[in-house]
Amino acid sequence: MYLESVNSPSDLKKLTIGELGIYAEEVREYIVRVTEKRGGHLASNLGAVELTIAMHYVFDCPRDKFIFDVGHQTYTHKIITGRRDAFTSLRTDGGISGFENMAESEYDAFTTGHSSTSLSVGLGFARARDLSGGSYNVVAVIGDGAFTGGMTYEALNDIGASGTRMIMILNDNAMSITRNVGAISSYFGKLRLSRRYKVLKTKFKRGINGIPLVGGVLVRATERLKKAVKKQVMTVRMFEQLGIKYYGAFDGHNIGELVYILNQAKTFGGPVILHVVTRKGSGLYEAEHDPVKYHGVTGEKENILKFSDVAAEKLVALGEKDDRIVCVSAAMLPSTGLSPFRERFPDRCYDVGIAEQHAVAMCAGLAAAGYKPYFAVYSTFLQRGFDQLVHDVGINALPVRFLIDRAGAAGADGVTHQGLFDLSYMTAIPGMCVMAPRCGKDLAKMIEWSADHRGPLAIRYPKGYAESADDEPADIEYGRWEVLSRSDNGVYVLAVGPNMIELARETDCTLVSARFVKPLDTEFLRGVCGSGNMIITLEENIVRGGFGESVLDELNLLGAECHTVNLGFEDRFCDCRSVNAAFEENGLTSSRLNGIVAAFVASKKNM
Amino acid sequence: MYLESVNSPSDLKKLTIGELGIYAEEVREYIVRVTEKRGGHLASNLGAVELTIAMHYVFDCPRDKFIFDVGHQTYTHKIITGRRDAFTSLRTDGGISGFENMAESEYDAFTTGHSSTSLSVGLGFARARDLSGGSYNVVAVIGDGAFTGGMTYEALNDIGASGTRMIMILNDNAMSITRNVGAISSYFGKLRLSRRYKVLKTKFKRGINGIPLVGGVLVRATERLKKAVKKQVMTVRMFEQLGIKYYGAFDGHNIGELVYILNQAKTFGGPVILHVVTRKGSGLYEAEHDPVKYHGVTGEKENILKFSDVAAEKLVALGEKDDRIVCVSAAMLPSTGLSPFRERFPDRCYDVGIAEQHAVAMCAGLAAAGYKPYFAVYSTFLQRGFDQLVHDVGINALPVRFLIDRAGAAGADGVTHQGLFDLSYMTAIPGMCVMAPRCGKDLAKMIEWSADHRGPLAIRYPKGYAESADDEPADIEYGRWEVLSRSDNGVYVLAVGPNMIELARETDCTLVSARFVKPLDTEFLRGVCGSGNMIITLEENIVRGGFGESVLDELNLLGAECHTVNLGFEDRFCDCRSVNAAFEENGLTSSRLNGIVAAFVASKKNM
Repeated sequence: MYLESVNSPSDLKKLTIGELGIYAEEVREYIVRVTEKRGGHLASNLGAVELTIAMHYVFDCPRDKFIFDVGHQTYTHKIITGRRDAFTSLRTDGGISGFENMAESEYDAFTTGHSSTSLSVGLGFARARDLSGGSYNVVAVIGDGAFTGGMTYEALNDIGASGTRMIMILNDNAMSITRNVGAISSYFGKLRLSRRYKVLKTKFKRGINGIPLVGGVLVRATERLKKAVKKQVMTVRMFEQLGIKYYGAFDGHNIGELVYILNQAKTFGGPVILHVVTRKGSGLYEAEHDPVKYHGVTGEKENILKFSDVAAEKLVALGEKDDRIVCVSAAMLPSTGLSPFRERFPDRCYDVGIAEQHAVAMCAGLAAAGYKPYFAVYSTFLQRGFDQLVHDVGINALPVRFLIDRAGAAGADGVTHQGLFDLSYMTAIPGMCVMAPRCGKDLAKMIEWSADHRGPLAIRYPKGYAESADDEPADIEYGRWEVLSRSDNGVYVLAVGPNMIELARETDCTLVSARFVKPLDTEFLRGVCGSGNMIITLEENIVRGGFGESVLDELNLLGAECHTVNLGFEDRFCDCRSVNAAFEENGLTSSRLNGIVAAFVASKKNM
Repeated sequence: MYLESVNSPSDLKKLTIGELGIYAEEVREYIVRVTEKRGGHLASNLGAVELTIAMHYVFDCPRDKFIFDVGHQTYTHKIITGRRDAFTSLRTDGGISGFENMAESEYDAFTTGHSSTSLSVGLGFARARDLSGGSYNVVAVIGDGAFTGGMTYEALNDIGASGTRMIMILNDNAMSITRNVGAISSYFGKLRLSRRYKVLKTKFKRGINGIPLVGGVLVRATERLKKAVKKQVMTVRMFEQLGIKYYGAFDGHNIGELVYILNQAKTFGGPVILHVVTRKGSGLYEAEHDPVKYHGVTGEKENILKFSDVAAEKLVALGEKDDRIVCVSAAMLPSTGLSPFRERFPDRCYDVGIAEQHAVAMCAGLAAAGYKPYFAVYSTFLQRGFDQLVHDVGINALPVRFLIDRAGAAGADGVTHQGLFDLSYMTAIPGMCVMAPRCGKDLAKMIEWSADHRGPLAIRYPKGYAESADDEPADIEYGRWEVLSRSDNGVYVLAVGPNMIELARETDCTLVSARFVKPLDTEFLRGVCGSGNMIITLEENIVRGGFGESVLDELNLLGAECHTVNLGFEDRFCDCRSVNAAFEENGLTSSRLNGIVAAFVASKKNM
């Protein structure tokens, strides 16, 4: 067992290339074992095992800076860098993060989670090195999917012009999160299938295939590889035109080849891209067969619809009636539930790649031309389209509909994926209608209603199951809330979304589903804002700029005399890995709520 | 005079190619005349005169959709489409916008103002056309500078894959707003200088050069051109690899050539890029000689520093003392005042192109590696880096400093350039320190202070002159405000920034410079929040999510009993073209403020 013997990159460097191959198999098995229990990005990690081992074998981390794009493929990196045992706590509270995370280890040069940032961050490190006269290497590992994000090109443009020393590894697993999206992907496909790459693979498959290759055999094989690579190297115009050297494509599962290539890359004086072809889910039959399913493995409930599924079902139904309904996804068709819509209406469903900026503006164009676009997107990723929300959708008051999924606590994905800002950044946009359903039925109603709304509109809902209450949600009236239960104790809980409503279910209060976060139900507020009453806002969003503050503002305008308490996420980042822990950490608990209500009721009695 | 005879595109179509050349000269003169008085983007408009005329000659606007990227080059378009006389009101309140603007005319297919959105919006229109079985043309005009923005690649990726019919005109004026930035620009440079382009130009310069060319001569010339173009056409790999046909480069000032090329492009069945080379400021010696200066022409005051200049001066001084100070600009070096820093420290100043996302994340990398980056950027453009502010800077609590210029009312640029959201989106980010100086001296102090701050930090200041008050601003203490004048009437005006402070100067109140918008000066608030007092917040930002609401929130936590009024921009987009009109429209006037104070003082007396 080499797995147990490697506690740091220096331990790894003691192994031979052949032993590295065995170690890789052990790491692979270990990752499978842990993710079976903890969930996570299985396939992409299995694809990156050999590449990561080769990187640590050749480079000197943490002196050399590894920036993993998205950072979801870092399990092997974590196992190598002293976190093997802790790795069993993957994606749990207080445990190992599912992404690269500066706060977790000195070996993690940066915190990642969103796509297409690694080249920009890497260039920052490279420039700092150049200014300080340092000599460390900067290695960015970036998937082909991340190349659909425009930020990558912004960085390439700057990197090419800078001419600085930086190694970019294009980890090409022939698919982004779902499938090939867009023109760049088919371009990479051509590179992969090029004759030269095939020749390269065939020629050296037998020579350096890993197990067990030692001593002289290795040396001879490497020599052969060396000569061949020089000849076979495929320079690619697209990158070269930007002033960046390109070499590839290489077999991403051949450690010997990778070690050789990386050693070569170390000696380059400028920016270089190494194109490495990996198979997502390499080594696990199921994962390789169905990489979409295995992208993230989680314990799933059967037979209960998620909010995403409810949305999808409703969109298909609407699509049958109205052929102006179109759907847009940013490389998240299955995750946001849009696959059924795509199957039913392939011509009216656009997957634009990991390109939220483009998605928002493209929707604006569709809406300006009379169509009814629905962009289904995670809350945390829509952040990337903020300027387009303001500039392209907002200013023109165009009826683009945003289905903001994973709004609120993100669960196991942790700090980079929390959907805790959308109520703040969406409600700051003039004319933006922002809604939050209380259950699956409510979501369906909202989507139906939204089809005829004449301005920009967002519906935000959490990750997870849309367990609908027995009662039918009230019909939707613009800007009006729904009262779910009544009490005569003068306490009004205005709760946004199913989790917050759930939290207040047992509290003695008039419970209101604040289904319109913008515009507020001013009429309702006017009726309950007298002295002797208490209003409590409850939101799965940061308090700063969120629902509670807008209620405070409105109450202030109304000259309210009631007591008001805003509950929501506190003004700090939250790296909890479970929804409940996130709620606990931010005081979003029934017991706290009940305590606040009890104290208020008691103080009234004493008056 | 053809100028007077053209009141719509159909009038234009009655002219011969030769007459179009004369018309172009007249339009050029007219633009110069108006912009001398009104300011505006002179050079880029002079560069686009012939191109725009040719577009209207060939296409059928508004049936065909013209999307002008940024939209600052649309003066000719406006003059042709029924806005010739109104054009004298350029950039004034109630007058003609300096950008393409849907609200202004049916000929303006979309509202633009920010860079790199046209291909995305255009694809939306094209897809809507395809779905509805329509036949209109979509023509996007995009400058070379916009190609440094990543959104352009997100769109190209999708356009290439879609294969839809769309004409993209790369209006290459050999510079973005300032100079060649990044690798893509030098790539375009190579295309421009390629032998083939030269041949093409030489061969047909004499044949189709415009004035006066009529009848048979034109036909023969066009025939010659036709054959030659087929041979000479330069297909370019970069675009072709994305599945997009490329033709060019063409002379952007030769109307005959442009008309021919555009007619050809109309017949293409898929996406096509036409590379057109123009000279910014063509036809005006001064503009051609110094296109940076003429990019925007405005009446400037002499000898009074702008906030941008104060910032620049201070950064140079800091840079002398601390070699970890580095500056970053997104294609806005002169406009944000960074040019002196670049001159003094060329190695420590990075212009990354119109690439705010990359700029923010690159700064995060620099900061993680121990440097002290300052990113000087317009408030409205920083919106594009919101996700990176949260994900790369915020989560890692990295000390990146944002100098947010043009915060508040934008003046003549109007609705797309208002800096009215930064207080909302910046303060929503945990750990982000947000400051606003009251004058030039205060800004210099803040920048000095910021150099040693250990977390993310933003300093926001308006466009315009930093006329410093005679008094020296107090030393900066983290999270503490500065009291400027005192009154014993119980009214406290908390004003953010110089314009709001100016507005309250004559008001009977205790006037406070709320120099920290985040964190708030809780101690101060605690001292003044008793009953019988009034707190008025004043901010040059939308009220929703801004300073006033965070004060309300804090007062609520403090159990305040004072009366509070939040003044700021209302919850709608503001298309005022002067700062004063914007203030008037939003009730940000001394008289309203004085009225509120007087009413409060009177009501106290009656109690």
